Amino acid sequence: MKDINIASLVKPNVRSLRAYQAEEVPCKVKLDANESPYSAISDQRSAISFKENLQTLNRYPDPEAKKLRGLIAKEFRVKPENILHGNGSDELIYNLITTFGGPVLYPVPTFSMYGIISQALGEGKIEIPLDDKFDLDIEKLLKAIKRYRPKLIFLSSPNNPTGNSFSTDRISKIIESASSPVTRHPSLVVVDEAYQAFSGKKSFLPLLKKYKNLAVLKTLSKIGLAALRTGFLIADAEVINEVNKVRLPFNVNSLSQAVAIEALKNKKQMRSYVSSIVSERKRLVNEMRKIEGVKPYPSDANFILFKVANADAIHKGLLKRGILVRNMNGAVKDCLRVTVGTPKENEVFLKNLKSSL
Amino acid sequence: MKDINIASLVKPNVRSLRAYQAEEVPCKVKLDANESPYSAISDQRSAISFKENLQTLNRYPDPEAKKLRGLIAKEFRVKPENILHGNGSDELIYNLITTFGGPVLYPVPTFSMYGIISQALGEGKIEIPLDDKFDLDIEKLLKAIKRYRPKLIFLSSPNNPTGNSFSTDRISKIIESASSPVTRHPSLVVVDEAYQAFSGKKSFLPLLKKYKNLAVLKTLSKIGLAALRTGFLIADAEVINEVNKVRLPFNVNSLSQAVAIEALKNKKQMRSYVSSIVSERKRLVNEMRKIEGVKPYPSDANFILFKVANADAIHKGLLKRGILVRNMNGAVKDCLRVTVGTPKENEVFLKNLKSSL
Repeated sequence: MKDINIASLVKPNVRSLRAYQAEEVPCKVKLDANESPYSAISDQRSAISFKENLQTLNRYPDPEAKKLRGLIAKEFRVKPENILHGNGSDELIYNLITTFGGPVLYPVPTFSMYGIISQALGEGKIEIPLDDKFDLDIEKLLKAIKRYRPKLIFLSSPNNPTGNSFSTDRISKIIESASSPVTRHPSLVVVDEAYQAFSGKKSFLPLLKKYKNLAVLKTLSKIGLAALRTGFLIADAEVINEVNKVRLPFNVNSLSQAVAIEALKNKKQMRSYVSSIVSERKRLVNEMRKIEGVKPYPSDANFILFKVANADAIHKGLLKRGILVRNMNGAVKDCLRVTVGTPKENEVFLKNLKSSL
Repeated sequence: MKDINIASLVKPNVRSLRAYQAEEVPCKVKLDANESPYSAISDQRSAISFKENLQTLNRYPDPEAKKLRGLIAKEFRVKPENILHGNGSDELIYNLITTFGGPVLYPVPTFSMYGIISQALGEGKIEIPLDDKFDLDIEKLLKAIKRYRPKLIFLSSPNNPTGNSFSTDRISKIIESASSPVTRHPSLVVVDEAYQAFSGKKSFLPLLKKYKNLAVLKTLSKIGLAALRTGFLIADAEVINEVNKVRLPFNVNSLSQAVAIEALKNKKQMRSYVSSIVSERKRLVNEMRKIEGVKPYPSDANFILFKVANADAIHKGLLKRGILVRNMNGAVKDCLRVTVGTPKENEVFLKNLKSSL
């Protein structure tokens, strides 16, 4: 029965989908994935928490992640009922689009998963280009909201891959417009704050009290715990309650819950790593500015987007020298994206960037 | 702006969805969730594997889970390209329904997630009652397949919550019928073998070579590693390739991958635990048969479905005594489901069942 054409059985939106590319490329210095160069938790303390969990590997995880959500609630000054835990925030993006459907609106270039997941779920996508400063094109956005009445709007701020935060007043305008009582079709506006810790700018969390149609995404992945896959949706309890219906009951495994709990008990260490990364970012941008033929863009995140004359060749050249950065040439013409590493890694990157030009 | 009605924004299929109930109920003896009473891996060995991973908590997991899939390939004598890794097999059910869509056909009663996920994704459900022996009602099923042309058919064998394996020849007939070249709309038949290790019956894996429209689900959750959330879809590489498009890139976290790898290196221990559970199941069924007013059904799994006069009251009575079993009265009239525990736990259960009657 080898003659069955499997592709013909697949939903058309999935058939034409190109999956997120997350290949493992061998390299000496890995600066491609916006990971922290520092593991957020010390060996000894995790090992202790882990030993407790070994006795119960046969048991399902806490489906409600009560302890973990309790700590996150404290950290962000919200209530546990305002928090939904995800297997990384990309699972929460899946859950959000499953719950509210499309069309899904977002500016481009931005985090590619908004588009990939919308397509995977067969929901319409509305992509509005950023302005020439990589900020939100507020006129076009407001027009599109009025015209297409999106169910969901995703705003990643700081934005990946451009690195800048969007103007606070423009984000507020979008939330206002999408919640106007005149609009009979409000949208849920999701501000993705994956990189907010590095921005020195205010979170949108305090606005949750004002806007029921606002939701904020947070993740532990950028601050030293990418291995765990732990993200959070913070929103009105009514929003959480609806999205929770489509969440898989045991979506965050026991070991990740345990290690995340340990890490959150020692926020001091995580914060000091964030500070180091922020000062290294500043230094790195300054150094890159001095290199002829390299134009780094201002960054509020733990990575830097930069323009070069021949992105593909320089990406290859760096890789040949053992340095992996992300080639963004598809999304932003002539651009590469480098994650801020340790001071030593950054030095190696700078040296090899110069010799690759 | 508190006047926005969030529920009105939600897709109607999600609005009316009742989420899977996985509450944590305090108890002394936990026999409700079909977990193994034994953690599949020894403390020391996991601790070693874990320490290696602590250095790299800041790094994303291997998106392709190459090592883990390599071991699973060996275990089940398939190729790594025939395997997709999931955050538990319920994530793979999500991925399958996202990829192929509905209608989704399955017998009832069965694992509730087939129906819950179909509804979450807005796909049609076709539920065909089992016959009076809890086996597949082959006539009704073949008729329904012809009439509704389901995209997906889920067959959990051994079946949860009834405990029996379905007749091999009936499953084969369904696969045949759903792959017939005469049918211009073939179905993908997913045999969910979550409990197959306890059945002493053959896996459907060898039939993968014959039927391109067959897929098999496997999980580590029932054999002592529920905490990890690790499941596998095994199928033709073309099926895997399509379903992989909708998989989140980092869906199985690093710690679960590492511990699962350790566990799979020591299959002997896991197998001996499975043997103990199987012999305890036999003993438990025999003992339950001796109790007046209790009718245990034959089981090929690590749990036993049993009928009593007043299921709700006995469920409550057991819980009052610290014993948690699953109340199945909603799905199978007058029935409870008890997971096979350690010999000691089973004794406590038997004693308290008698006094609860």
